[in-house]
Amino acid sequence: MKNIVTIGGGTGSFTLLSGLKKYPVNISAIVSMADDGGSTGRLRDELGVLPPGDIRQCLVALSNSSDTLRELMNYRFENGGLKGHNFGNILLSALEKIKGGFSLGVREATNILGVKGAVIPVSEDTMTLYIKLKNNKILIGENQLDHNRDIRKYGIKNVYLKPTAKANRDALSAIKNADVIVIGPGDHFGSIIPNLLVDGISEAIKKSKAKVVYNCNLTNKKGQTENFDVDKYTREINTYLKGERIDFVVFPATQPDKDLQDKYEKREGKNSVVKISDDIKIERNYKIVKSNVLNEVPIKKNKEDKIASTRSFIRHDSDKLAKVILAISEIGDEKLIKEIV
Amino acid sequence: MKNIVTIGGGTGSFTLLSGLKKYPVNISAIVSMADDGGSTGRLRDELGVLPPGDIRQCLVALSNSSDTLRELMNYRFENGGLKGHNFGNILLSALEKIKGGFSLGVREATNILGVKGAVIPVSEDTMTLYIKLKNNKILIGENQLDHNRDIRKYGIKNVYLKPTAKANRDALSAIKNADVIVIGPGDHFGSIIPNLLVDGISEAIKKSKAKVVYNCNLTNKKGQTENFDVDKYTREINTYLKGERIDFVVFPATQPDKDLQDKYEKREGKNSVVKISDDIKIERNYKIVKSNVLNEVPIKKNKEDKIASTRSFIRHDSDKLAKVILAISEIGDEKLIKEIV
Repeated sequence: MKNIVTIGGGTGSFTLLSGLKKYPVNISAIVSMADDGGSTGRLRDELGVLPPGDIRQCLVALSNSSDTLRELMNYRFENGGLKGHNFGNILLSALEKIKGGFSLGVREATNILGVKGAVIPVSEDTMTLYIKLKNNKILIGENQLDHNRDIRKYGIKNVYLKPTAKANRDALSAIKNADVIVIGPGDHFGSIIPNLLVDGISEAIKKSKAKVVYNCNLTNKKGQTENFDVDKYTREINTYLKGERIDFVVFPATQPDKDLQDKYEKREGKNSVVKISDDIKIERNYKIVKSNVLNEVPIKKNKEDKIASTRSFIRHDSDKLAKVILAISEIGDEKLIKEIV
Repeated sequence: MKNIVTIGGGTGSFTLLSGLKKYPVNISAIVSMADDGGSTGRLRDELGVLPPGDIRQCLVALSNSSDTLRELMNYRFENGGLKGHNFGNILLSALEKIKGGFSLGVREATNILGVKGAVIPVSEDTMTLYIKLKNNKILIGENQLDHNRDIRKYGIKNVYLKPTAKANRDALSAIKNADVIVIGPGDHFGSIIPNLLVDGISEAIKKSKAKVVYNCNLTNKKGQTENFDVDKYTREINTYLKGERIDFVVFPATQPDKDLQDKYEKREGKNSVVKISDDIKIERNYKIVKSNVLNEVPIKKNKEDKIASTRSFIRHDSDKLAKVILAISEIGDEKLIKEIV
């Protein structure tokens, strides 16, 4: 079986892993530990645990347990002192305390939930994301990405971790043994880049013999990835990888509905739906794989299922994404890839 | 297989069930829902759920899951907004919300934890215990038993539920099909009597063809069961059962260490260690089964295992208690019974 390593966190990883788990592959999901907002942030602050939220989503995606157990993991309390806390986050925090380490706790959760594959926190160090704006102001904490209006106003220059964080050994060994490394989908500064900032990760990716696939974002965020196109995203990721390491960039063969695009542009400004530049002078050390990976059914917001109630409506489709990754791994149907640029 | 129904709650039921589960019998544990203190009380108040604490202990006792999962159920958070909450209580509260009913949630927990037998909340109605003192003052809430100093001063006249609570159908059907019904061990007013106050329970016990066994308390509490001996306890239970329904009363054949007895008398007053009266004029419609059911190893207080850190040191032994219950059920070794009075 091929060894597939995914790198990301949150909803993007949930989408990818939900699709991949249906195939006979060894999955190792490496997950960002930079999250510090919401229920996760409170548990970090109050219990001194590592952030459970993104790990929880990956565990649920790969779980073969009953629907109730999966629903339970995502259940969010609505009243009292537990209000806003997610049951799965509480479970992971308790397991970290009992087992004496976050990775050990995650491994135990893997057993309880009948998870296919491994879910690996990218680091066991406490990670804090620093965000430097173009006016040189510095914001502290990943949750600022969603809430601080200065980001939309001034724009992000770069992000870094302070203090630095050391890679989890399990993450390094998964990367070393990978046949395919899949970066994204996921929030660019919130879920993807923090993984690449961890000491040892980009070096391990460079050294590995795996094919490196990048699932490029579909939409842009004002002040964060404003005006990014596919090549700009890829260059950015390569910069954080400290070298041109990406082999394939997966991107939709078709554009989303015009109405949906208009909705995004209204909210996030011009060019907020990512496109491939038609500039023929661009030289690429990577191949853009155009394939039908768009989720074409608008997701119905569902109060019960926090994962399904995604923030955006232009998003990847689990199954289509998984099929393309498998095709690139040369174990799937190459016809699924419409065109390689 | 014999159908054994236990009636109680908390540590007493934990002790009994931990022993019984090792034998090939069908166990149905009926559990009081009157608890309203601690983590359980907060969850009742804040989430409007039924009290999970006693149910949790019974689930853990009957669980065949890994040590970690059992430890997890009893894990108590030590910091922040979750401080004092027990993980298992949070699990049961979340399952009640997800499944839309406490019994349905408990059934789901039974699956998750690989529980042998059924754990049945005595009622799905919200139960509030009213405590009438001998000075006619009324205290509201089961947790008053542990905290209100007036109880020690004036003593309890009687207890009742207000409003009345209706028996859970599953509890009634378990009682109907029982070969043996085991009442106690457990806190007299806190865990045992509240079950018998639920509409339908005592009637069902009266009607059933089961042998009724009462595991008499070993110690008394000042103001609550002051000066009670074995016959007084049994009369009290029979009164709440509205008829002389008890067939066997299980009680230790030997007395606890003198030192231990002194310790109790110092704290709870004279006669705080329960004895069998040697008054030969007492007429009994029940048999007192004297057997070696004392736990003779002082329990070591263990911070991790909240169940083992029992409040008292004169207590029943799980295995010995289970063996006597089985002997009475005529499927065990009758030699375990030293003497029948």
